Amino acid sequence: MLLALSTWQEIEAYLERSTAIIIPIGSTEQHGPNGLIGTDSICPTHIAAGMAEKEDMLVAPTISYGMSQHHMAFAGSATLSPSTLMAVVIDIVGSFRQHGFTHFYFLNGHGGNIAPVTSAFSEIYAGHGNDKTSPRCRLANWWRDSAIAALAKELYGNAEGYHATVSEVALSYHAHPEAVKHAEMEPAVAPTDEFYDAADFRRKFPDGRIGSSPQLATVADGERFYQLAVETLTKDFHAFVANS
Amino acid sequence: MLLALSTWQEIEAYLERSTAIIIPIGSTEQHGPNGLIGTDSICPTHIAAGMAEKEDMLVAPTISYGMSQHHMAFAGSATLSPSTLMAVVIDIVGSFRQHGFTHFYFLNGHGGNIAPVTSAFSEIYAGHGNDKTSPRCRLANWWRDSAIAALAKELYGNAEGYHATVSEVALSYHAHPEAVKHAEMEPAVAPTDEFYDAADFRRKFPDGRIGSSPQLATVADGERFYQLAVETLTKDFHAFVANS
Amino acid sequence: MLLALSTWQEIEAYLERSTAIIIPIGSTEQHGPNGLIGTDSICPTHIAAGMAEKEDMLVAPTISYGMSQHHMAFAGSATLSPSTLMAVVIDIVGSFRQHGFTHFYFLNGHGGNIAPVTSAFSEIYAGHGNDKTSPRCRLANWWRDSAIAALAKELYGNAEGYHATVSEVALSYHAHPEAVKHAEMEPAVAPTDEFYDAADFRRKFPDGRIGSSPQLATVADGERFYQLAVETLTKDFHAFVANS
Amino acid sequence: MLLALSTWQEIEAYLERSTAIIIPIGSTEQHGPNGLIGTDSICPTHIAAGMAEKEDMLVAPTISYGMSQHHMAFAGSATLSPSTLMAVVIDIVGSFRQHGFTHFYFLNGHGGNIAPVTSAFSEIYAGHGNDKTSPRCRLANWWRDSAIAALAKELYGNAEGYHATVSEVALSYHAHPEAVKHAEMEPAVAPTDEFYDAADFRRKFPDGRIGSSPQLATVADGERFYQLAVETLTKDFHAFVANS
Amino acid sequence: MLLALSTWQEIEAYLERSTAIIIPIGSTEQHGPNGLIGTDSICPTHIAAGMAEKEDMLVAPTISYGMSQHHMAFAGSATLSPSTLMAVVIDIVGSFRQHGFTHFYFLNGHGGNIAPVTSAFSEIYAGHGNDKTSPRCRLANWWRDSAIAALAKELYGNAEGYHATVSEVALSYHAHPEAVKHAEMEPAVAPTDEFYDAADFRRKFPDGRIGSSPQLATVADGERFYQLAVETLTKDFHAFVANS
Amino acid sequence: MLLALSTWQEIEAYLERSTAIIIPIGSTEQHGPNGLIGTDSICPTHIAAGMAEKEDMLVAPTISYGMSQHHMAFAGSATLSPSTLMAVVIDIVGSFRQHGFTHFYFLNGHGGNIAPVTSAFSEIYAGHGNDKTSPRCRLANWWRDSAIAALAKELYGNAEGYHATVSEVALSYHAHPEAVKHAEMEPAVAPTDEFYDAADFRRKFPDGRIGSSPQLATVADGERFYQLAVETLTKDFHAFVANS
Ligand code: NI
Ligand code: NI
Ligand code: NI
Ligand code: NI
Ligand code: NI
Ligand code: NI
Repeated sequence: MLLALSTWQEIEAYLERSTAIIIPIGSTEQHGPNGLIGTDSICPTHIAAGMAEKEDMLVAPTISYGMSQHHMAFAGSATLSPSTLMAVVIDIVGSFRQHGFTHFYFLNGHGGNIAPVTSAFSEIYAGHGNDKTSPRCRLANWWRDSAIAALAKELYGNAEGYHATVSEVALSYHAHPEAVKHAEMEPAVAPTDEFYDAADFRRKFPDGRIGSSPQLATVADGERFYQLAVETLTKDFHAFVANS
Repeated sequence: MLLALSTWQEIEAYLERSTAIIIPIGSTEQHGPNGLIGTDSICPTHIAAGMAEKEDMLVAPTISYGMSQHHMAFAGSATLSPSTLMAVVIDIVGSFRQHGFTHFYFLNGHGGNIAPVTSAFSEIYAGHGNDKTSPRCRLANWWRDSAIAALAKELYGNAEGYHATVSEVALSYHAHPEAVKHAEMEPAVAPTDEFYDAADFRRKFPDGRIGSSPQLATVADGERFYQLAVETLTKDFHAFVANS
Repeated sequence: MLLALSTWQEIEAYLERSTAIIIPIGSTEQHGPNGLIGTDSICPTHIAAGMAEKEDMLVAPTISYGMSQHHMAFAGSATLSPSTLMAVVIDIVGSFRQHGFTHFYFLNGHGGNIAPVTSAFSEIYAGHGNDKTSPRCRLANWWRDSAIAALAKELYGNAEGYHATVSEVALSYHAHPEAVKHAEMEPAVAPTDEFYDAADFRRKFPDGRIGSSPQLATVADGERFYQLAVETLTKDFHAFVANS
Repeated sequence: MLLALSTWQEIEAYLERSTAIIIPIGSTEQHGPNGLIGTDSICPTHIAAGMAEKEDMLVAPTISYGMSQHHMAFAGSATLSPSTLMAVVIDIVGSFRQHGFTHFYFLNGHGGNIAPVTSAFSEIYAGHGNDKTSPRCRLANWWRDSAIAALAKELYGNAEGYHATVSEVALSYHAHPEAVKHAEMEPAVAPTDEFYDAADFRRKFPDGRIGSSPQLATVADGERFYQLAVETLTKDFHAFVANS
Repeated sequence: MLLALSTWQEIEAYLERSTAIIIPIGSTEQHGPNGLIGTDSICPTHIAAGMAEKEDMLVAPTISYGMSQHHMAFAGSATLSPSTLMAVVIDIVGSFRQHGFTHFYFLNGHGGNIAPVTSAFSEIYAGHGNDKTSPRCRLANWWRDSAIAALAKELYGNAEGYHATVSEVALSYHAHPEAVKHAEMEPAVAPTDEFYDAADFRRKFPDGRIGSSPQLATVADGERFYQLAVETLTKDFHAFVANS
Repeated sequence: MLLALSTWQEIEAYLERSTAIIIPIGSTEQHGPNGLIGTDSICPTHIAAGMAEKEDMLVAPTISYGMSQHHMAFAGSATLSPSTLMAVVIDIVGSFRQHGFTHFYFLNGHGGNIAPVTSAFSEIYAGHGNDKTSPRCRLANWWRDSAIAALAKELYGNAEGYHATVSEVALSYHAHPEAVKHAEMEPAVAPTDEFYDAADFRRKFPDGRIGSSPQLATVADGERFYQLAVETLTKDFHAFVANS
């Protein structure tokens, strides 16, 4: 069930059955020579839609802009400052709480969001002290799920990489097969390194990839990630709601 | 050309041809008994996609959460505070400016966004003083376009209304025919009034509509609005880029 | 009754009779070759004083600095950022609420204030959710009143203009006849156009006027606007208090 | 020369002669049984006008709302939070700097403004590092001037007090003889004490005075304070401009 | 009793005996040729430890960074902006309040902290309106204590000075005899003047001292200040707790 | 070399030799029945002092208050909000940058600081775009160092735990042997679980420990951690400075 395609009366009815909501969150940032700028938003949006197709779960509109400061030396990347992203998360949780939602499952597609979203959760909890009814927030990073990580390892070994990974590019292609791209990449497996600011990132990773070979990504592999992610994150969602 | 489905190299190439970008902005809020909670985001996203299909224009991901404080007494509505929405707009404009974009065409679907987005533009301009290269920002409210308003008047007269209007519901149905809803509404044409806070809104407009009869909305009408909006807003976009 | 010239015991007594307050709000910005920099503050201050002379209404001190970013390329203009102005409005409403005031009638003299003050109202309402006793705020733009606009049209036709209008200059002269100025202006009626930042404003409107001929302004006309504004805004004030 | 009654061309001309500006700043707060709520704004406004009558000095509109948190238990008092007041001061200084002003003489009527305005100055200076052209800001508290304090001591001894002082009430009466009030006060000289929050203030000073006997205030005394303040603060202003 | 060296159960027990806490606050800024950069933090930390040795008082960790904008032209100085320091104070008071603390005794070593900390207290009080249980905050500036000031006067006369004073350098040497420094200073007594920003400070006080001769500082004198400060501030602390 | 015990001239000289600085950062929060509330600040302060004893490294004053929202249900804990902590880090880095420092090594003792400090780094980098001289910031979490973690595993196996760990309590005891505490704990090894807000934390971990047996902590073990941490973090510091 997609919030954007529902009426308010349908949400009122949903709240009788569940007070949990899935909020996909991604970014708008470069993903190398053949990866889509929307990759990090497309992936959690796609997985969440799959979850909601199979079970009675409510999916909110995707937060499509994230914290991508380190990608800003590549055209088309956009970033919210950490404090802006925190404000967005705080406002959205605060809004849905007014209607009775209690469990906020942020399905995340982007590593750079982890620090600010975690910080936002702390600000949210701080507002509730020892209040026994304070909200429950979880940041689920789909690519860090152990089953997903194992599949990526099995399929690509070290060529999976850390940014513009094969798995995320494949999953985005499954969501948007019309947007599959092909590009020469040199070297085949991108370098890895620590990095600091955006200029440093670009110097070290001139085509935008970190440690990955996204030229290996296919729609067919994307479907495997999709099926697995829908299954494994559905379990994670149920565990979250049941245990917190 | 959709930013989310492009690579950074494709954006680098686009910047050789144009430094203007379309940024759809909407809201997540109740739209009466048969209107979709995503209406205000769906409409500008749909129009922008149509514009980009016909001409070489770049469309950024939609800002799906807007300033909807007055809708918060209806389940499923979410709101950013005005200052959060201002920060989002400022950060996004600031990001794209770093890549050389100069013209920011916010294609807006929601009246409640006008005050904070206009305020954000002032903060952006303030940062540039007499700088001759300061950005150019425009907030284009699709439903206020004179051709669109005339069509709505012609089709529905006063039943077009002010919130959950027939035209916006029709346009959202054209974008998502799978989500067409039917609902009894009483009275046929909703009341109109001034309103203050969310509780006052709900008291005066108990099913969420203001002055409208969205039960008249059809996919066929939606297509007329779509075609007209693509045409008339494309002209508006060109005028903006040419004259500022 | 002027708050600034009252004692706290007099205000305590007033609150027994009424919980409504008028707060004039203006700006400090250029108004063309013969308009006063204080025009936008002087006008609502003058009208409010007239209202309070005739009826038992309480008038707070004027907020003399507004959001005037686009006038900053002319000497003497000052601007609060939108977020500062929002904070000022929020703090003042919050202060008076502590004493039991419920109705806040902002009598506004400056178009640039509309977006930030409207945004501030939303932040204020957001703090009160479904609270039935939340405050009622109204932004009354004196020059947009239909009777006032009709008089300006009758007297000056299109030469009334959009900034440094004849009516506001005339009204400010009625308030301060000692400050009447004379200046040559070329062309007689200033140009009109859309504008973006402060530099753009100055380029397009080199003497500060938009579409107006303020050399037509006289103290006598100012008196007509004054009498009409006191009468018509008093009605508006009563309607606001009665109906909200 | 009053900024509010000038045109932008007149300010442009003034800037050829001087780059210093006087900005009166006060508050809107209770001043005991016979003191005006506007006392702290009226006094510096009155003195500044006197200074500008005698010499070629420019006076900006008064900041009429200050930091008055501790007076909030008395009807009619209003307060900006310290951070709002800081933002106001920062924005106003930043605005006038754009036109070439270099010396900002805040003529202050309220002790509660000292901490936030001083903090604002630090934020302003922080923005300029070792920049040799950074602005010069001075907070001149008229009642702390040694000549003024000596006159108050001579006239009233200890009955001058610390809030709703005889001198400030007298000076406000000189500015507004139409608003002179009479009230019984018990005890004749109000108590003095340290205080914390607004409730504590009201408990300790039930009629709003601290240590003062403002029933002694007369228009005639007010004139003496006025003449002396105009003279002594004019000297202080010149010393500030000459030595910084 | 030092909070940092206690367990939470020990604090729970302390709260049965007292709800007052001492919070030393200083700065990290130059203190002339032989003064330590940590002087302003070392002094109140040292005094507070002495107070807690003699009586059952709880001392929180020192806030070691203060508002030192005007010292920024000297290597090693650091500053929080006034608004950051305000946030720090507000958060710390808010935290301890949750555990039941009611009296917050900030033992301050740095004049530049006075404006922002005082502003923070106002923001804290504003949050509590007429709440009878609002916290009590006191900023105790050790060097302004009359007994301390008298001793400094007696020992050094005018050579005590205003920054990098003999007394504070002596006291810091008593706390850290291993860090005693020797330096030639010319002139023997540093100049005094008003100052504005950091560049102005450095121009007027090229070695960092204002009006002082810290070459007179000895560990032995430091001990006298230490003993006196422990005694006199202990009394001040008790008076604060008893009377507010 | 401790910044707090240096003069500004000594820092000026240090900057000729190095532009790197170590900034210990911790928290003020419960650490179970025998752990010190200052543990997280004491540990990095102690290690940093050890590093500076052996080599020519500069250590700034410790940031003693961190982000500890989830510990707030235990007496004595204090927390900065994430945004306050971000502001502190941003201001301190900005301050030292003015003197020419380029490398900021935050030696961290508290897991809860990771998200906000990482977010602060992003805000800092965002201010510098493609500026080739932007600062380099590193958050070194001493307990996550692989050598340290291996030693803890070897000594305590799973009883090391996740909060109030044996290793951190031991290290704090080595720094403050006068503060060693003894307490009965039941069960011997504390439970582990995910947690949300402060109330949830207290429910799940009633004595404050997570998964640990800090009753095993000894000064002797603390010395082993101290020696190892000084050695291994010195290497990490050099690698950071050399490679970034
Ligand atoms: Ni990604
Ligand atoms: Ni709509
Ligand atoms: Ni105007
Ligand atoms: Ni006063
Ligand atoms: Ni000092
Ligand atoms: Ni710890």
